[in-house]
Amino acid sequence: MIRLFTSDDLGPRRQVAPTAAQAHYLTRVMRLPAGGELRLFNGRDGEWSARLAAPAGKTCRLQVEALERPQSFGPDLDLVVALVKRGRLETIVEKAAELGARRVRLAITERANVGHANIARLAAIATEAAEQTGRLDVPDIFRPEPLTSLLADWPADRRLMFCDEAGDAPPALEALVRAEGRAWAVLIGPEGGFSPAERAHIRALPAAVPVSLGPRILRADTAAISALTLWQAAGGDWRGP
Amino acid sequence: MIRLFTSDDLGPRRQVAPTAAQAHYLTRVMRLPAGGELRLFNGRDGEWSARLAAPAGKTCRLQVEALERPQSFGPDLDLVVALVKRGRLETIVEKAAELGARRVRLAITERANVGHANIARLAAIATEAAEQTGRLDVPDIFRPEPLTSLLADWPADRRLMFCDEAGDAPPALEALVRAEGRAWAVLIGPEGGFSPAERAHIRALPAAVPVSLGPRILRADTAAISALTLWQAAGGDWRGP
Repeated sequence: MIRLFTSDDLGPRRQVAPTAAQAHYLTRVMRLPAGGELRLFNGRDGEWSARLAAPAGKTCRLQVEALERPQSFGPDLDLVVALVKRGRLETIVEKAAELGARRVRLAITERANVGHANIARLAAIATEAAEQTGRLDVPDIFRPEPLTSLLADWPADRRLMFCDEAGDAPPALEALVRAEGRAWAVLIGPEGGFSPAERAHIRALPAAVPVSLGPRILRADTAAISALTLWQAAGGDWRGP
Repeated sequence: MIRLFTSDDLGPRRQVAPTAAQAHYLTRVMRLPAGGELRLFNGRDGEWSARLAAPAGKTCRLQVEALERPQSFGPDLDLVVALVKRGRLETIVEKAAELGARRVRLAITERANVGHANIARLAAIATEAAEQTGRLDVPDIFRPEPLTSLLADWPADRRLMFCDEAGDAPPALEALVRAEGRAWAVLIGPEGGFSPAERAHIRALPAAVPVSLGPRILRADTAAISALTLWQAAGGDWRGP
């Protein structure tokens, strides 16, 4: 079943105008006929069944039909990730969407590989991954911000799972036994690791929970996926009903 | 510190001939001077310090010096993965090396995306990932084999973590509470999932342990990384000393 994200409101008898890229995807790539069924979600109104209305000239419209799933959100989990190289950052954003992160914050660190990011492209990757993974919202991607200012403004009530390569942190599953029911974020450093000053700054935060991700050196994308997985399994929505 | 895998024996006063690609990497990419230090491992003799010997004509030699870490292996964990599309399969092999899998077996399934794989290229990816992640061996990559014959010959004493999308499996962490100290494999299906017949065949194996990886649909590479992570955290070498 095709699932598309729209920014339009969804409700009975509404019509939605797909973007040009969505119209191309529906009619050219997927060759959906007039009357063909799909699902729509917008992060507010739940998931709705809809049909491709008969084409009228060049426009393409989607006729909204029925509510299939009421709006819901996953646990309150953010990902804070250093600006690593473009390919790995794109992988991380895709996986953050699959693994249920609500927001992705990009941190400029001392050893960051790059100083900028194409937010529109990352948002498009997050949207496509959200469509495919079946969630009812799309993670927000924030503009890059210096790690120091992110930490200076860190909310006291959001725990920060700090994936610390430097060695003496407890295994992640041990550190996450009380993860349930709170707001959290996962923090992933750049390929070269955090600087000693950054590391001291992070560990001094009362909200920081240092964890170890095993004895091998992980690339940033692997560390992000592993950390989000362990959080969801220990305290998030992978725990079952 | 540069780490290279070699198939040569390692020991005091031995000399190792790097491959042409390794010689190029050392002298051209990394610009290692004569006398420059690196580490060598071969999956048998541990990790050794070595130095680039002074060049003699066109040949390049590595002088082995001292044992830095005795040979060790991670837990006895295999990955069995359906032949998914090339890019995702390459990611999976890289991550399997980082996450400590000992062997990667490629399964031809009913809904597999492709029927062949470039084993030499996958082995090179596994070797490079092993060099960077710090392990002392390289995972073996096996030629593709039909899933039916893999299952027909499945050893009774190797548990099979079956990542089952179809719904009624318990959360992975619950299913893995007794993972410790046994031989295991993680089984990951193709993008379209296993067929009903394949699924019934897998679940009928006494060694099979069906697990759920949460409420969202995961791509094959995400599922592989998440499953290997959860296994290492619950029963493998991420549990700490």
